[in-house]
Amino acid sequence: MEYRKIKDQDENEDLPGDDIENLRGRAISGVSVSKVATLGGSSIDKSKWKRKSIVTLALTVLTSSQAILIVWSKRAGKYEYSVTTANFLVETLKCALSLAALARIWRNEGVTDDNRLSTTLDEVSVYPIPAALYLVKNLLQYYIFAYVDAPGYQILKNLNIISTGVLYRIILKKKLSEIQWAAFIILCAGCTTAQLNPSSDRVLQTPFQGWVMAIVMALLSGFAGVYTEAIIKKRPSRNINVQNFWLYVFGMAFNAVAILIQDFDAVVNKGFFHGYSLITTLMIVNHALSGIAVSMVMKYADNIVKVYSTSVAMLLTAFVSVFLFGFHLSLAFFLGSIVVSVSVYLHSIGKVQR
Amino acid sequence: MEYRKIKDQDENEDLPGDDIENLRGRAISGVSVSKVATLGGSSIDKSKWKRKSIVTLALTVLTSSQAILIVWSKRAGKYEYSVTTANFLVETLKCALSLAALARIWRNEGVTDDNRLSTTLDEVSVYPIPAALYLVKNLLQYYIFAYVDAPGYQILKNLNIISTGVLYRIILKKKLSEIQWAAFIILCAGCTTAQLNPSSDRVLQTPFQGWVMAIVMALLSGFAGVYTEAIIKKRPSRNINVQNFWLYVFGMAFNAVAILIQDFDAVVNKGFFHGYSLITTLMIVNHALSGIAVSMVMKYADNIVKVYSTSVAMLLTAFVSVFLFGFHLSLAFFLGSIVVSVSVYLHSIGKVQR
Repeated sequence: MEYRKIKDQDENEDLPGDDIENLRGRAISGVSVSKVATLGGSSIDKSKWKRKSIVTLALTVLTSSQAILIVWSKRAGKYEYSVTTANFLVETLKCALSLAALARIWRNEGVTDDNRLSTTLDEVSVYPIPAALYLVKNLLQYYIFAYVDAPGYQILKNLNIISTGVLYRIILKKKLSEIQWAAFIILCAGCTTAQLNPSSDRVLQTPFQGWVMAIVMALLSGFAGVYTEAIIKKRPSRNINVQNFWLYVFGMAFNAVAILIQDFDAVVNKGFFHGYSLITTLMIVNHALSGIAVSMVMKYADNIVKVYSTSVAMLLTAFVSVFLFGFHLSLAFFLGSIVVSVSVYLHSIGKVQR
Repeated sequence: MEYRKIKDQDENEDLPGDDIENLRGRAISGVSVSKVATLGGSSIDKSKWKRKSIVTLALTVLTSSQAILIVWSKRAGKYEYSVTTANFLVETLKCALSLAALARIWRNEGVTDDNRLSTTLDEVSVYPIPAALYLVKNLLQYYIFAYVDAPGYQILKNLNIISTGVLYRIILKKKLSEIQWAAFIILCAGCTTAQLNPSSDRVLQTPFQGWVMAIVMALLSGFAGVYTEAIIKKRPSRNINVQNFWLYVFGMAFNAVAILIQDFDAVVNKGFFHGYSLITTLMIVNHALSGIAVSMVMKYADNIVKVYSTSVAMLLTAFVSVFLFGFHLSLAFFLGSIVVSVSVYLHSIGKVQR
């Protein structure tokens, strides 16, 4: 049950389907938009900035509401469905939405080389890699609980922030300014601070193997995110909905494997949809939409913006939970929020001064 | 007893004597050194930087060892002396050291307008002000405990960091860059995080009057520190030891008043030196030396550097206490330390880019 809880909170960040969506985006923005920009000038820059802001805001709001739905579902005691089946449905819904978007594009623009669904082995061969990385990571998740308890794991998950930053630098070869690096370090410290609770100190007693596993998992997660950004940008003219379709197909496949490994008996005995409720449906829709928002952020921004967006969403969730569920905010939460806010500010001014 | 503990931990920061020392410094650096600098060029800049680093390091080490002495004295159970008499002796020792330094200067350079002890009412009239501010603040300290407990007060004391920054800007009209402001905010958050303990959340239940008093106390403390820097810099050519002498004389006077208010009965019944031990003597010497280090930091640097120095000292103390007293460091402490370290880094790069 503890594993489930955590897994669920991970859903947007860590399951194959969602992060595969990171593959969306950039296709147009990479080359074609930059070509247009040289013609159109600053009004295009402005509209790019506006789009970037809107999709980032959308991701933040969707991620927050997602966490709130999870809390709500726990409160309602509705937690008896198989998480793997829900994830499979999220992938399926995203696949369907990509196809719907493609159908509209085909109707309006006709089928071209860039938006046709058929693909080459060369193009499609890299697409399963991020999904496979997440599968390995999610399997490791079972074993790390031998060394760390659930709240400790929540704390250790913040290592993802650092691993994403480091791999973003190494793999995508994009530079962050000194100030942005400093901002990223305090983002990690601030998020962890905001999540502190009286039992958090136990994480310091994590044995060596636990630390190694936590670091490996952070690297797998960071690598999957950064790798998706890399492969999306490799073919900038390819229509994003096609790229998404193939990614989501692999997401469905890997989640089908997860159903077989984790929930085969439950599905056979109680049925695929056992324990589903209105809130389960809402969560699946929300996850699919959040996934699309992640795609958009990857398209108009990057992994760094995604990390900031989900971090701010974590804080928003806690604020909103005060009103919705009567949660009490701790002093640690306030301090962490201040640090995260300053980090966001520093990231933005660090960019200007680069 | 609780009040005493806190008062003791405050000694370097908050008692008239110590902060009056902030008045030292700058006298030479302000005008005379900058004149020399235009002649001497970068080698003087380098030696100024070296001096600044050395005195900052000295303040940090002395402040840490001071806190360690306090812990040691508590562990040894030696805490039965009157704190006010110890503070009076600290002032007296600093006064004596200033006179000794002056005597040496008079022997080497002769008595001049800048280093003679006699003064005008116009010059000396502002000197009691910081000491008076601290007296008011220390009296308020009695009343705030009606609203906040001792660990809560330790947390609220971090408001001093913000008040010092704001008053430094307003009174001394010195600018901090955007990055330095951001660094200062996370310095405050980081120090507070490092001091978090399971009972810290109670500070959030502080009633309105408690917040008002905490803010007033932070403003009084910040104002006293910044004001001393201001009056020191008003007469840059005046010898620092003379300025110190007058400040310490008022420090002695105000601490004499404190003895009368707080410990008159104990001194009359048990004697001035009741409860003194070797460790008490070490603490008095250490406080006097820390006071001189504060002077040096104010001379070659400013209130901002002083705040950073004492913040880093707080962290150093905790690290050293692990080895000396077997303290356990909390996760919050590590997170706070990371944030404070990044703050120090940002403060330094913020300056360069100004």
